[in-house]
Amino acid sequence: MAGKFYIVGVGPGDPELMTIKAYKNIKNADIIAYPGDGRKEGTAYQIACKAIPEVRQKKTIYLKFPMTRDEKQLEKSHDNAANDIINLLNTGKDVSMITLGDPCIYSTAFYVFERIESKGYETEIINGINSYSAAAAKSMISLAMKDEKLIITTPEQIVTSFDGTMVIMKSGYHLKELKKMFRDRKMYLIENCGMENENLFSEEIPDKAGYFSTLIIKSEKT
Amino acid sequence: MAGKFYIVGVGPGDPELMTIKAYKNIKNADIIAYPGDGRKEGTAYQIACKAIPEVRQKKTIYLKFPMTRDEKQLEKSHDNAANDIINLLNTGKDVSMITLGDPCIYSTAFYVFERIESKGYETEIINGINSYSAAAAKSMISLAMKDEKLIITTPEQIVTSFDGTMVIMKSGYHLKELKKMFRDRKMYLIENCGMENENLFSEEIPDKAGYFSTLIIKSEKT
Repeated sequence: MAGKFYIVGVGPGDPELMTIKAYKNIKNADIIAYPGDGRKEGTAYQIACKAIPEVRQKKTIYLKFPMTRDEKQLEKSHDNAANDIINLLNTGKDVSMITLGDPCIYSTAFYVFERIESKGYETEIINGINSYSAAAAKSMISLAMKDEKLIITTPEQIVTSFDGTMVIMKSGYHLKELKKMFRDRKMYLIENCGMENENLFSEEIPDKAGYFSTLIIKSEKT
Repeated sequence: MAGKFYIVGVGPGDPELMTIKAYKNIKNADIIAYPGDGRKEGTAYQIACKAIPEVRQKKTIYLKFPMTRDEKQLEKSHDNAANDIINLLNTGKDVSMITLGDPCIYSTAFYVFERIESKGYETEIINGINSYSAAAAKSMISLAMKDEKLIITTPEQIVTSFDGTMVIMKSGYHLKELKKMFRDRKMYLIENCGMENENLFSEEIPDKAGYFSTLIIKSEKT
């Protein structure tokens, strides 16, 4: 019988922000799949190791995803990752693919998941805390109250007029223009959420920050 | 020295979807605060008890929040809850107020939090998994990929045209009109997420469901 495939959110960085379900799943996993190139271990893998040190003794498989927007190259990498995992599932082993944050929101793991799920393998998604929730908690702000809207988006799909809160994921390279665009609004930035080099900004937002930067823009003025 | 106040998300229902941090916080809490009327125990309290049975032996305080949209009545209830908790903090005890889902998204706990925080008490927010993430995981769908937007809102603030995904919280009483409004789109509904009476719908969405119903509407057609 084929094994089961899980995509597991390890949360935003702090190993204690993993769910009990994710913790148990990773602890009991036959094989851990993670994005990386074999030499440089991925962020999700490091979080899992901090929470569960015995992960380092487990069988792992690293999946290569190029940092590109070229659709064909990306699709090929998702196909390859799915095929590599399917080969392992066919030996009867369960595979847990770990991912930062939540697997249902902007996660490469989901592309691999849909390929494996569509072929009839048993699958499950285990949620994780998103970086934007962690950023709000650390900034001690709410993302939505009463009938406020919360919009989660990327620098490519910005909404210029909104009530409530807009979260822009991976906004670090676009801060200068975003600050100009929303100059009258209150902003909060979290860079490298939950990691050792985490930075929180609420007064003076920098013009540039690392790739893993989440910007929260409130609709009310400062 | 005054105690510390925590708002703690217990997640969407499944006790295993609590974070390790929330689990430890509740386990070690001096006093658990929860919404309820003293007789009927709240949903968040039941989730916490399932995860940590010794919660039943802990000192608890229940906070009354009327089911109304009357601003004055609501503000009074938030003031009263904050004052009750402050009285306990002043005795040197820590208080953990538990809440469904995540404290940063549509949570009554946040109104209490901002009152206590503004008075200079030591405070912390501990995240939880949202019902919409859990609903997506159970429905095996993604909420946002690539540059898709994700909009979280209530039945009072619907967006009629969007790319990506719209999540409508507490939509159970509005399903008939929502189905008419978005008749060409793919919808997923989760009623009573994570509880014993949980229902998942993806083919035939009912005209009415319970108060705790989360509707996910995708932009692509069925």
